[in-house]
Amino acid sequence: MRLGVLVSGSGTNLQALIDARDRGELSPAELAVVIANRPRAKAVERARDAGISAEVVDHTRFGGDRRSFEEALASCLDSFGVEAVILAGFMRVLSPTFVDRYPRRMLNTHPSLLPAFPGVRAPEQAVAHGVKVSGCTIHFVDAGVDTGPIIFQAAVPVLDADDAASLHRRILAEEHALLPKAARLMAAGALICEDRRVRVVEAA
Amino acid sequence: MRLGVLVSGSGTNLQALIDARDRGELSPAELAVVIANRPRAKAVERARDAGISAEVVDHTRFGGDRRSFEEALASCLDSFGVEAVILAGFMRVLSPTFVDRYPRRMLNTHPSLLPAFPGVRAPEQAVAHGVKVSGCTIHFVDAGVDTGPIIFQAAVPVLDADDAASLHRRILAEEHALLPKAARLMAAGALICEDRRVRVVEAA
Repeated sequence: MRLGVLVSGSGTNLQALIDARDRGELSPAELAVVIANRPRAKAVERARDAGISAEVVDHTRFGGDRRSFEEALASCLDSFGVEAVILAGFMRVLSPTFVDRYPRRMLNTHPSLLPAFPGVRAPEQAVAHGVKVSGCTIHFVDAGVDTGPIIFQAAVPVLDADDAASLHRRILAEEHALLPKAARLMAAGALICEDRRVRVVEAA
Repeated sequence: MRLGVLVSGSGTNLQALIDARDRGELSPAELAVVIANRPRAKAVERARDAGISAEVVDHTRFGGDRRSFEEALASCLDSFGVEAVILAGFMRVLSPTFVDRYPRRMLNTHPSLLPAFPGVRAPEQAVAHGVKVSGCTIHFVDAGVDTGPIIFQAAVPVLDADDAASLHRRILAEEHALLPKAARLMAAGALICEDRRVRVVEAA
């Protein structure tokens, strides 16, 4: 299964996918293309260093027209034969029309234990709320913001000395372990959704 | 510090407080009185078996007048010299007027990782939502429903085979460990709130 990875920033989750591929742990998923919505995203460099095609579809070039931006994204994904999409720190909300192109074939990683702290700056929200446990969520993308069926979650402690940055680092380490695993299982057809509950059906 | 424990049901969290007292782990907190809002609450029996005064303030006797119900609760607590309150499976929402009688001296235990799944039937909500991690929260009570500053949380896995009951049992085991600990620390003056963040200041 050919994956397209959408990124906005430094791309540490992309790097985790690349590292899993290099260890032979991503197959039958393949990294077909990385698309950044920001020209200077460090993720573009990581992709090229790893021998993966990297493209930029700059959302600022579409004058706020999300439909045109998403059509450009879709064209780019199609031109690389992409069958499934990974949002790896992609900071644009996608329309239901775009999401519907990849039913149960689009994953997102989010730095909180959803449904707590959806949206932007989740670690900052968690610290401000004073929770003692946070974590990460790997989920299918649906039409809502961070609302799709949950594949994996991992908990991490929130320490007295934490700020948003130190908590986010602890959470990212968990995301880096779980996102490649979820990508592989999705490609292997091993993720079964029953209503909102997701089960892994292979002996992983 | 003399504690009043408010209960509605079987009282397993009350039992955890009693067991901690019997092990000498609750002091300087003392169990002064248990008050149930349901005459047949099993918690009443547990209290009496443990040599603790138990009273019933039946909310159905007040014809839906919450203020009168709460005044009766407050009178009963005052008559036992109660300085702080533990909600241990107490299923009535208390008004801000009542809550304000015990500033940072009222604890609640809730069977989810708040702010996820506040309100009733939290384990059922968690299973229906398909989360992979849930847990419990011990928190100070404020004017909202399950919104007060968080003292402790513990995470538990949600398994494929779980229903609400099996998940709830796993969560309760964590509540039973953390609620007596929080009660002791509150009584010892060891819980410090800074905005919403709660720190433990003694070497516990």
